[in-house]
Amino acid sequence: MTGFRTERVVPLPSRMHYDELLRRELALDLGVAGDVTTKALIPEQTTAKGRIVARGPGRVCGLRCALWAFDAVGSVTVTIENDDGADVEAGTVVAIVAGAAQTVLTAERTALNLLSHLSGVATATRDLVTVVATKGTARVVCTRKTTPGLRALEKYAVRVGGGWNHRFGLYDGVLIKDNHLVLAGGVTAAIAKIRATQGHMVKVEVEVDTLAQLDEALSAGADAVLLDNMTPADLELAVNRAEGRVITEASGGISAHTIGQVAATGIDIISVGWITHSAPALDFGLDVDPVI
Amino acid sequence: MTGFRTERVVPLPSRMHYDELLRRELALDLGVAGDVTTKALIPEQTTAKGRIVARGPGRVCGLRCALWAFDAVGSVTVTIENDDGADVEAGTVVAIVAGAAQTVLTAERTALNLLSHLSGVATATRDLVTVVATKGTARVVCTRKTTPGLRALEKYAVRVGGGWNHRFGLYDGVLIKDNHLVLAGGVTAAIAKIRATQGHMVKVEVEVDTLAQLDEALSAGADAVLLDNMTPADLELAVNRAEGRVITEASGGISAHTIGQVAATGIDIISVGWITHSAPALDFGLDVDPVI
Amino acid sequence: MTGFRTERVVPLPSRMHYDELLRRELALDLGVAGDVTTKALIPEQTTAKGRIVARGPGRVCGLRCALWAFDAVGSVTVTIENDDGADVEAGTVVAIVAGAAQTVLTAERTALNLLSHLSGVATATRDLVTVVATKGTARVVCTRKTTPGLRALEKYAVRVGGGWNHRFGLYDGVLIKDNHLVLAGGVTAAIAKIRATQGHMVKVEVEVDTLAQLDEALSAGADAVLLDNMTPADLELAVNRAEGRVITEASGGISAHTIGQVAATGIDIISVGWITHSAPALDFGLDVDPVI
Amino acid sequence: MTGFRTERVVPLPSRMHYDELLRRELALDLGVAGDVTTKALIPEQTTAKGRIVARGPGRVCGLRCALWAFDAVGSVTVTIENDDGADVEAGTVVAIVAGAAQTVLTAERTALNLLSHLSGVATATRDLVTVVATKGTARVVCTRKTTPGLRALEKYAVRVGGGWNHRFGLYDGVLIKDNHLVLAGGVTAAIAKIRATQGHMVKVEVEVDTLAQLDEALSAGADAVLLDNMTPADLELAVNRAEGRVITEASGGISAHTIGQVAATGIDIISVGWITHSAPALDFGLDVDPVI
Amino acid sequence: MTGFRTERVVPLPSRMHYDELLRRELALDLGVAGDVTTKALIPEQTTAKGRIVARGPGRVCGLRCALWAFDAVGSVTVTIENDDGADVEAGTVVAIVAGAAQTVLTAERTALNLLSHLSGVATATRDLVTVVATKGTARVVCTRKTTPGLRALEKYAVRVGGGWNHRFGLYDGVLIKDNHLVLAGGVTAAIAKIRATQGHMVKVEVEVDTLAQLDEALSAGADAVLLDNMTPADLELAVNRAEGRVITEASGGISAHTIGQVAATGIDIISVGWITHSAPALDFGLDVDPVI
Amino acid sequence: MTGFRTERVVPLPSRMHYDELLRRELALDLGVAGDVTTKALIPEQTTAKGRIVARGPGRVCGLRCALWAFDAVGSVTVTIENDDGADVEAGTVVAIVAGAAQTVLTAERTALNLLSHLSGVATATRDLVTVVATKGTARVVCTRKTTPGLRALEKYAVRVGGGWNHRFGLYDGVLIKDNHLVLAGGVTAAIAKIRATQGHMVKVEVEVDTLAQLDEALSAGADAVLLDNMTPADLELAVNRAEGRVITEASGGISAHTIGQVAATGIDIISVGWITHSAPALDFGLDVDPVI
Repeated sequence: MTGFRTERVVPLPSRMHYDELLRRELALDLGVAGDVTTKALIPEQTTAKGRIVARGPGRVCGLRCALWAFDAVGSVTVTIENDDGADVEAGTVVAIVAGAAQTVLTAERTALNLLSHLSGVATATRDLVTVVATKGTARVVCTRKTTPGLRALEKYAVRVGGGWNHRFGLYDGVLIKDNHLVLAGGVTAAIAKIRATQGHMVKVEVEVDTLAQLDEALSAGADAVLLDNMTPADLELAVNRAEGRVITEASGGISAHTIGQVAATGIDIISVGWITHSAPALDFGLDVDPVI
Repeated sequence: MTGFRTERVVPLPSRMHYDELLRRELALDLGVAGDVTTKALIPEQTTAKGRIVARGPGRVCGLRCALWAFDAVGSVTVTIENDDGADVEAGTVVAIVAGAAQTVLTAERTALNLLSHLSGVATATRDLVTVVATKGTARVVCTRKTTPGLRALEKYAVRVGGGWNHRFGLYDGVLIKDNHLVLAGGVTAAIAKIRATQGHMVKVEVEVDTLAQLDEALSAGADAVLLDNMTPADLELAVNRAEGRVITEASGGISAHTIGQVAATGIDIISVGWITHSAPALDFGLDVDPVI
Repeated sequence: MTGFRTERVVPLPSRMHYDELLRRELALDLGVAGDVTTKALIPEQTTAKGRIVARGPGRVCGLRCALWAFDAVGSVTVTIENDDGADVEAGTVVAIVAGAAQTVLTAERTALNLLSHLSGVATATRDLVTVVATKGTARVVCTRKTTPGLRALEKYAVRVGGGWNHRFGLYDGVLIKDNHLVLAGGVTAAIAKIRATQGHMVKVEVEVDTLAQLDEALSAGADAVLLDNMTPADLELAVNRAEGRVITEASGGISAHTIGQVAATGIDIISVGWITHSAPALDFGLDVDPVI
Repeated sequence: MTGFRTERVVPLPSRMHYDELLRRELALDLGVAGDVTTKALIPEQTTAKGRIVARGPGRVCGLRCALWAFDAVGSVTVTIENDDGADVEAGTVVAIVAGAAQTVLTAERTALNLLSHLSGVATATRDLVTVVATKGTARVVCTRKTTPGLRALEKYAVRVGGGWNHRFGLYDGVLIKDNHLVLAGGVTAAIAKIRATQGHMVKVEVEVDTLAQLDEALSAGADAVLLDNMTPADLELAVNRAEGRVITEASGGISAHTIGQVAATGIDIISVGWITHSAPALDFGLDVDPVI
Repeated sequence: MTGFRTERVVPLPSRMHYDELLRRELALDLGVAGDVTTKALIPEQTTAKGRIVARGPGRVCGLRCALWAFDAVGSVTVTIENDDGADVEAGTVVAIVAGAAQTVLTAERTALNLLSHLSGVATATRDLVTVVATKGTARVVCTRKTTPGLRALEKYAVRVGGGWNHRFGLYDGVLIKDNHLVLAGGVTAAIAKIRATQGHMVKVEVEVDTLAQLDEALSAGADAVLLDNMTPADLELAVNRAEGRVITEASGGISAHTIGQVAATGIDIISVGWITHSAPALDFGLDVDPVI
Repeated sequence: MTGFRTERVVPLPSRMHYDELLRRELALDLGVAGDVTTKALIPEQTTAKGRIVARGPGRVCGLRCALWAFDAVGSVTVTIENDDGADVEAGTVVAIVAGAAQTVLTAERTALNLLSHLSGVATATRDLVTVVATKGTARVVCTRKTTPGLRALEKYAVRVGGGWNHRFGLYDGVLIKDNHLVLAGGVTAAIAKIRATQGHMVKVEVEVDTLAQLDEALSAGADAVLLDNMTPADLELAVNRAEGRVITEASGGISAHTIGQVAATGIDIISVGWITHSAPALDFGLDVDPVI
C-alpha cells in the first residue's frame, strides 16, 4: 500500500461529518424503493468482488470516506491498495471490496462519486503545488468558494494535494473584504473595531488593493493582507513594502498559467478558488467479478 | 427580466429540498459564532444593496434557489433581472438584493457558491445541446455521476441548459448494467427476471456492448438500450439494427469534440457524465453599495 | 422455517428507512423517562424469552422489520420460525426473542404494532389475489392511498401478499387524473405536454371515463389507461377496444365481492385502495417466560 | 360551520408534531423530482378551487391537521365547512381550498390520507360510544395498540369520537401487565416495588385475571385494575367486589357486538384496541374546479 | 467498584436520549475541522490511558452517559472504579479509559462537562436529602426549573442524589398553578374542568396559597396540593388541616438553611428548583499517561 | 428601554442555533400530549398579558433568545423593557408578552429557564469584571468548561457580562495542553509540529507550568501562553519574563476572592471556568393578567 498520507500527516475529516453526508446521499439515490434493478436480478446470498480502478492519472483522495458508503448499505471486506495521497495512472486499482453483490452494486455510484470528486480536487491542487515549488516557498491555499455541501471534504482534498487551508467559514478567522471596507470606513477604522471585539486567539486579515491601503494595514497591525487581483509586478512591490511584517496573500484570477509568476514574487500565500469549485473529477470505475 | 424559463417549462426543484441544503450549508459556514467580521464591523441597522453580477459568459441557473440563502439569514428585497435560462455576459447583473448589510454580506458566499455551480452545469449542457442541435434530434441527457449532495439541483440545471434527465436514482427506473449481466446470466435472463418483478409503470433499459446483445435485448422486449463506449460507426450500425423498436442511448467518454459525430448517427439519447461532475463553475460576484 | 419469501423474491424495504421509522416510534413510546413500569419491576440482569405468536389466521409480514425494535432498545437473540410470506393460524409462533427481560418487554408493543399492521395488509392482499387467480391473469395493485408514514412498508406488504405496486409517489411515473384533465385541456393535449417534458424512462398513464377518451389515449400514445369506476360490462368493452395496445387498469370501489367479476373482464391491472388504508390488523402477542 | 369541537373541548395535538409528520410524508410522496405530472401539465399561475368531500357517512377528524399539507407545499385559502367532530354524509363538503392549482393537486393525496385515516378512527369510536351510552356510564378508551407513527393523532381522534385516552406511552403511567407479574413475583410484590420508586404524580394500574388477584390489588393499594379477557359475568363479579375502591377497566377482545354487555356490568373503563389499529378509513375526495 | 446504584435502583435515562445529546455536543466542539491540536501533535497509532479523577468531594453521577462520548469519537476500553451514586473525595479515580490517544483527548472535555454537571446536581441533592432525613420523612423533589436541554439527565441526577422527581413535562401530570387559577375561575372550577377531560391515569395537583383554598382543593378532590411560599408555621397548619387526605408539597424559596424546618412540619414533598438550575458543577479532570 | 447592548456591541448568537435549541426543549416539555393543564382549563380564544419580572438583582441576558419560545408555540406581541446587558433589581420588569393565554402559559417555563440561566452567567461574569477593572487591564475570559448544549449561548452571556471568549471549540484555535506535551515531546517539538501543519490564520497557545517552559515557548514562537495554576507571585515573574512578546493567560482555580490579585500581576487574560459551569441562575418569573 502506498500513499501520500505517510509523508505528511493529513488527518481525515471528522467521520461523523462524512458519514452523515454519505447517508443522505444514499437515501436520495435509493429512495424508499431501493436499488430495484439489483434487488430483482441478484439474490441476497450472491457474493462479489469489486475492484475500484482509476480511469485516468491523478492523485487519490477521499478513499476511506467513500468506502464508508458500502458500510452504510451492508457489510464488505475492504482492501486498500492506494490510499489518499497516492499518485495513480489509468488502470491502477486503489481498493478492493468483497461481500454481498447487492451491497457492492448498490453503494458503487455513491462511493465513486465522492472519490472522483475529491480526487479531482487533490489532483488539481497537486499540479499547482508542483509548479509553485519550482519558483519559491509560497503555499497554495483554498478559499470559501467551495462546492455546496462539500467544504470540509474539499479542504481535506486540498491538503492531500499538498495545499493548505484558509478559513473554514465565517466563524474561524477575520477577513475584512472590500465590501466591508466600503461600509466600515476604511482599513484603519475597520481593524480598530475588530481589535476592540475579538478574542486573543483570532487573527485579522484585510483585503488591500493599493500600496496606500497596505501601509494603513501595516500601521493598524493586521496579521495578514490579501492583495486582490494585482499583477505580478504590483505583488512584488507589495511584498517588498511589507518587509515580512505581515503575511502576504495573492488572490484573484490566478490560473495554472500565471501561478508560477505569482510564486516568484516572494508572496507567502496564493489562494485559488478553482481547485475547489471547478476541478474536473478524476474518473474511477468499479469492476465486478463473482466470488466463487 | 429575461429568462429561458419562459420558452420551455423547467419547473424548479422542490423548495423543501434546496431550503434544507442551503440551511445546512449556512450552518457550516456560520458555525455557532457566526460571521464574526461582519458582526464586528457593521451595525445591525446599516442597510446595503448588493448587485449579483456574472464575471463571465454563460447561462444562469439556480438563481431563485441561491437567493433563498438571504431569506434564511435575514430579510431582503430581491429584484430578479435575469432569471434561470438567461444567457449572460461578464458584467451582466442577474439580481439585486437590498436590506440589512449584515444579511447581504453573511449570505453572499453561500448564495454565490450555489449559483456559480449550477450555472456552470447549465452552461456546459447548453454548449453541448447547441452542437447536437446542428446534427440531429438526439437529446443530451445527464447520468447519476453527479456531485455528492447536489443531484436534484444538477438535474434541474441540465434541463435549464436544454438537456434532459435520465433516472434520478436507483429507485425510479431499471437500468441493467454490465456488472448486473455478469452476475445475472446475460441479457435475456435478466430482462425476464425484471419483467417478473416490476410494476407496470417501470421501463427497462439494458446496457449492450455488441450487436448480438442488442438483438437479445430486442427479442427480450427491452424499452431502451444503452450502447456503451461504441464508436460512431458502431453506433450507426446499432441504430440501424434497432429500426426504432427500442430507444437507443449512446454513453461513455463523449466529449464536446465527439458529440457532433455521435449525434449524426441518429441515436435518440446521448448521456454525458461530465456536465454534472466536471463542469467548471460560472463565476458570479456581489458588489455592495450603501443604501442612503 | 417457512416463508413465502422463498417462492417469489420480495426484497425487504431499505433498512435505513424502517430503522428510522421504528426509532421515532420508540422515542415516542419511551419519552425521556422510558418504560417506568419495567425499569422499576425487573432488574437489568434478568433475562427472558418471548414467543411472538399469531392470535388469528393470516399471512405474516414485516417480521424482520419489526424485530429491529428490539435491536434499538438493547440486544436480543432472535429465532425466526415463520418469516414474511408464511400463512399462519392462531397460536402459530413466528419468532422467539431471548435476552434481557427489560429489552423484551420495552420493545414489545412497538414491534407488535408494526408486525400486526403489515401482516394485516399482506393478508387482505392475499385474499384478493386468491380470488383473482381463479378468474384470470390480472394483477392486484395498491395505490397511493396509504397510511401516513407507512407507504414503503405497506407496498412491501402488498407484494408479500402476492400483489403488485403502482407508483411509489408523485415522482416515479406520470398518472394524468381527471383533475389534471380539467385543467390541462383533455387527454390529447395532456399527453402531448407530458411527452414534451419527460425523460425517456418515464411511462405515462391517463385516467379515462369513456370509450371516446380511451380512443384519444390510444391515439396519443399512452402507455396505460386507468378506467375509473366502470362497471364490469364497460370494462369488458374497454378491454376489447384496447386490443392490447395499452395496459388497462380498473380502479374505484372494487371490493372482495366484486373483484372476481372485474378480473373476469380480461383487465391487466386491478388497483385497490383499501388493502393499504383499511385492512384490519392481524393480531400478534408476545408471551414471556423467564430464562433459567 | 358545525363541529363537535364546540360541544366538548378536544384540544388539537401539538402542531409541531403533526407538521413534522406531514412534512416527512410529503417528502416521501414528492421525492426530489416532485409531482412531475402536475408540474408538466399545469402552469404555475393557474389557480383552482378544490372541494374536500366525504365519500361516505362518518365523523370528521383531523381536518386542520390534514390541511396543513397545503401550507407546506404552497399557499392556499381555506374555508372550513365541517370541522372535527361533525357527523357527515356521503357528499358533504368539509372544506374548500383555493389557490395555485399546482399546490392543490400536489398536496391532495397527503392531506386526504391523513383526514381519511383519522376520520375512520373517530367514526369507529363514535359508534362504540353510542352503544355504550345506552347501557351505562363506562368510558371507551384506546390503548397503545396504535398505527406506527400515528399514536398522538389517533388518540386525538378517539377523543373526537367521544372516547377517552389511556397512557400515551410507557413513560406517563404505570401499567403492570401479566408479563411483568411473571417476572416480578406477583401483584403485591410488584405494587410495593412500584410505590418505592415512583413520584407522587404517578398512578398505578395492574392487570388481574382472577378475583384473588383483584383482592391482592385492592390490599396493595392499586389505583386501577385491568380485568383482562373476562366474560361479562366475571366482570360483574369483579365490579361488585371492587365496590368503588379502585377504577375498573375491561380489556381484551371486546367488539361492537359485545361492548353493550360489557358496559352493562357497571365497569368504569372499556379499552378497545381495534378503534386505533383496525378502523377502516373514511373516504374523502377532492373535486377541483378552475377559478376564473 | 462501588456505587449507590446497588442500594436503590435508579435506572439510567434512555440511551437514545443521551447519545443524541452528546453527539450534538461533540459536533459543536469539533466543528468540521475537528480537534486540530491533537490531530497535528499526536499520531493516530499512539495509545494512552486516561484516569478520570474527581477534583473535589461529592457524589458521582452521569458516568456511563459521559463515557459514551469516547465511543462516539473512537473506541476505548473503559474500567469503572466508582459508578453513579458513589461518594468520592478529591483525587478519587472514577474511571479509566484506554485506547487511541487522539480519542481520549478529543472526547475528554465533552465527557467531563457532562459528568461534572450531573455530579453537581447529585451532590447538591444528596446534601439536602441528608438534612431532611434527620427531620422527617419528606421527599426532596425537583421541578421543571431545569437547565435547557438537560432535564431528563438532571432528573436522573436528582434520583442518584436520593431525591425524587415531579412531572417530567407539561404532558405527564396536571399541575394547576396560580396563573391558571386567575384565568380559570378558582380552585373548584378548575378541578371540575380537569376531571371532565382527563384520562383515568392522570393525577391532579393544585397550587394553594391559603387555608381557604386548601379546603376548596380537599372538597374538589385534588390528589395533591402545592403550598406555595408558605412559612414553616403555615405549612404546619396546612398539613394538619389536610389530615392525610391529600399529598402535601412545599415549594418556593427553600434553601439548605431552611429545608430542615420545612421537613419538620410533616410535609410529604419538598420541591427545590436550585438543585437543578443552580447547583455548582463538581470538577473532574483527566490525567493522561502514555501506554507503553 | 435600557440595555448594555447599546454601550458595547455584543452581537446575538445565530438565530438558527438557538431556535433549534428551544424547539427541542419545547418538544421535550410538551411531549405529544402537550400542556394538558392549560388546554383543559383555558379556552383557545382567551388572551392574557404576562410580565417577565426579575426575582433578584443581576444582569439580563438571553432575553430575545428566550422570547423566541413564545413564537414557537403561538404568536404573541412582545415589548422589551430591559434588554440584554441591563442591570436590574428584584421586581424589575424586563419584557411583556401579550397574546393567547395558552401560548403565554405553555411557553413560560422554557423561556424563563433559558433567560435565568444566561442571566446567571452574565451576572457572574459582570461581578468578576468589576473587580478586575479596579486592578488592571486584564480580560476575563471563559473556557470550554461549559454546560452541555449551551456553549454558544454561554459565550454570548460572558460577553454581555463584560468578559471575552476564548476558543469556541477544538476547531478554531490551537491550544497545546499538558496532556499534549506529555505525548508530543515537549513545548519546542509541539510548536514546531503545529507550525508545519496549520494555516496562516491560526494562532497557537501553549500551556506552561514553569519559567523554563515559558522560555521554550518564547523561543519557539508561541502566540500565547497559558500559565496554569500559578500563584500570583509566579504569574508576576512570568509576565515580567514575557516582556510583552507573547500574550499571557492565567488559568486554574481562580475565584472571586483571588481574581483581584491575579489581575494586579499585569496578566493579559484571566480565564475562569465557573462563570459558565457553576454560575447560579438569576431567577425570573412570569406574572399573568387577563386582557380585557
